Amino acid sequence: MTGILSGMRVVEGSAFVAVPLAGMTLAQMGADVIRFDRIGGGLDFQRWPVTDQGRSLFWAGMNKGKRSIAVDLKSERGRELISEIVTAPGADAGLFLTNLRVRGWMDYETLSQRRRDLVMLSLAGDRRGRPQVDYTVNPQVGFPAATGPEGAPEPVAHVLPAWDCIAGNLAVAGLLAAERKRLRTGEGQEVTVTLKDVAAAMVGHLGIIGEAQVNGVDRPKGGNALYGAYGQDFVCADGERVMVIGLTDRQWRNLLQATGTAGAMAELERSLGTDLRQEGNRWRARHAITDLLRPFFETRRVEEFADAFDAAGVTWSVFRTFAQAAREDPDLTPDNPLFQELEQPGIGRYAMPGSPLGFSGSATVPPQPAHELGQHTEEILADVAGLGSGEIGRLFDAGVVAGPKG
Amino acid sequence: MTGILSGMRVVEGSAFVAVPLAGMTLAQMGADVIRFDRIGGGLDFQRWPVTDQGRSLFWAGMNKGKRSIAVDLKSERGRELISEIVTAPGADAGLFLTNLRVRGWMDYETLSQRRRDLVMLSLAGDRRGRPQVDYTVNPQVGFPAATGPEGAPEPVAHVLPAWDCIAGNLAVAGLLAAERKRLRTGEGQEVTVTLKDVAAAMVGHLGIIGEAQVNGVDRPKGGNALYGAYGQDFVCADGERVMVIGLTDRQWRNLLQATGTAGAMAELERSLGTDLRQEGNRWRARHAITDLLRPFFETRRVEEFADAFDAAGVTWSVFRTFAQAAREDPDLTPDNPLFQELEQPGIGRYAMPGSPLGFSGSATVPPQPAHELGQHTEEILADVAGLGSGEIGRLFDAGVVAGPKG
Repeated sequence: MTGILSGMRVVEGSAFVAVPLAGMTLAQMGADVIRFDRIGGGLDFQRWPVTDQGRSLFWAGMNKGKRSIAVDLKSERGRELISEIVTAPGADAGLFLTNLRVRGWMDYETLSQRRRDLVMLSLAGDRRGRPQVDYTVNPQVGFPAATGPEGAPEPVAHVLPAWDCIAGNLAVAGLLAAERKRLRTGEGQEVTVTLKDVAAAMVGHLGIIGEAQVNGVDRPKGGNALYGAYGQDFVCADGERVMVIGLTDRQWRNLLQATGTAGAMAELERSLGTDLRQEGNRWRARHAITDLLRPFFETRRVEEFADAFDAAGVTWSVFRTFAQAAREDPDLTPDNPLFQELEQPGIGRYAMPGSPLGFSGSATVPPQPAHELGQHTEEILADVAGLGSGEIGRLFDAGVVAGPKG
Repeated sequence: MTGILSGMRVVEGSAFVAVPLAGMTLAQMGADVIRFDRIGGGLDFQRWPVTDQGRSLFWAGMNKGKRSIAVDLKSERGRELISEIVTAPGADAGLFLTNLRVRGWMDYETLSQRRRDLVMLSLAGDRRGRPQVDYTVNPQVGFPAATGPEGAPEPVAHVLPAWDCIAGNLAVAGLLAAERKRLRTGEGQEVTVTLKDVAAAMVGHLGIIGEAQVNGVDRPKGGNALYGAYGQDFVCADGERVMVIGLTDRQWRNLLQATGTAGAMAELERSLGTDLRQEGNRWRARHAITDLLRPFFETRRVEEFADAFDAAGVTWSVFRTFAQAAREDPDLTPDNPLFQELEQPGIGRYAMPGSPLGFSGSATVPPQPAHELGQHTEEILADVAGLGSGEIGRLFDAGVVAGPKG
């Protein structure tokens, strides 16, 4: 068995989150993903977090298992080489992912002259061609204004680059859909997507545009509560914080049973004249519900109820910091087959994840560290661009390409 | 031209965000997506936001353009019907997406007995088989502890169900990858993914596990600042809030130029002995940078600098609430070809998005409202399950299936 995409070759010209994530997602399913960068590294080569020596843990994380070629993209010959590599022959090649805004030689129109069945996915900022980042898209569509403690005046932006991650996975889907069509018809095409449209569409999909337009309301901040049903965070006797969920009927019943609050809730229902089996009523009565549940948590350490909650089928979790999660959550360590502890050259040894997708009929591709920038310059020029060793030597000498620094 | 996935048929047994989003993403690329639900609606049929009449805007948003069949899933005959529909013949059928935790008849092992080349994607909560929701996964992996104003003690959970959205799009990629293999080899398989693994992997991909393990630090809250470079929110003279970005060199230079602060920044560099062309130094000096930029915004209304910022290539944005975004952002209205204003039966008329993916060689599938629960029960029983009208009538009479209420 090999990885489910083994044999596929994808070229990636990218920076930051979405497109590098898309390329890595394909690599972790077995595709040969070649990322090209300018010599010295692209815009994200120093992206934080970095080590004390300034090496980017972010870059290492987003480029695991890809091959790397470093080229002077300002030179005619460098651009020619990348064009050749993007459009090199192979039934399962001719796939190009990019978020670089390069007019001319890197356009679909130009590249597809070299290979008519090219499939090229371009991610842009917005439909007007303006650059956008997660930090600008998110405030525009309204999430920060609805995030944070009830009544707090300040918007709170998310820290996870969620729109990038969503867009990156959608880019994988778009590329595979276009390649599927090429398998059937022989035709390539350009696939386009913008970060802003990804966010705009999701606001619609989640019902939020309807909420504003049909209900005429603006969703207020709800703290850490689960919107529209019941879910709340509590501080326990040991100072730890937990989240408990009563989204479905079963979760709600299990929560009441595990906390011994069924009787108190029945009384609350009578006094409010409401039926808390209806999820919307739980949302409306959430503060009163929280008041009834709080003493349970205030008087107990997490270890006093954790096993009982699990046994009772309560959906709940602890809150951790990143460092605690990396240290204490077995799902983020090699206890989880998703992870392996590996050496990242120039950085050190730490737990690295593979793809969260499991395929029963294909091998799991083990996680690999990111390669050095330019690590595969020579082999890609030989095997993909088909150059001889003499010409490759001259390209290095002329500074048109570069290998790894080390 | 037809939608890029036209001809593909996918069956979805689902609730909530990730799998319904995956199915809808496929439907918005042209696939025939059949969602089955129990009679009366599944666990998410009343999910908030809802209208004043209790109709779910969320459900409508997540099921746009799918066909719907309502079946008594507790009855033997109902299960048999769904099994038939999932495994019905057709080279581009036999694709099943689910997050329902049903043992026995709905397992891959059982369903694949009926159709050997079935491709089934199952999303679960975590690798131990426990249910998880976005609200429990997120605190476990550490994001709320790193979100919110600097120094604030309380964790802040995101409001966007980001892990669900990321997982949903990854599920689309996983299904397409497995279907690609089936096209080549004739072999089906089960694809598995858990919400927790999606989050755990992303924490690794973003370099955060490395940051904790290699650097030995825990990332503190940074407010709305862009982590690791420069990006900050400011309140303007008109009370509006804007985000400005200095992530790349160019963005940083353009920001200084547009705000006339290049000289002041040069002085800051001298006084701090730092080089603000390095993104990490901008992060370290962010408070001092913000102090220099603040007067510009405090003394100007947004309309006074908006055009100049755009002309100067500043990457920036306004903050909006959801209702403001739906009202004021043309990208969330039919001004954007992504959206159409459509009538959602039982709810009303509002702007609905299609797929943010554009395919140059395939038609854009226009957005469609969600259909009524059970709207296509009869036609699916006839066309997909191959039943005659007499038998279909008996199934309705016996309450094994149901059509739309209305």
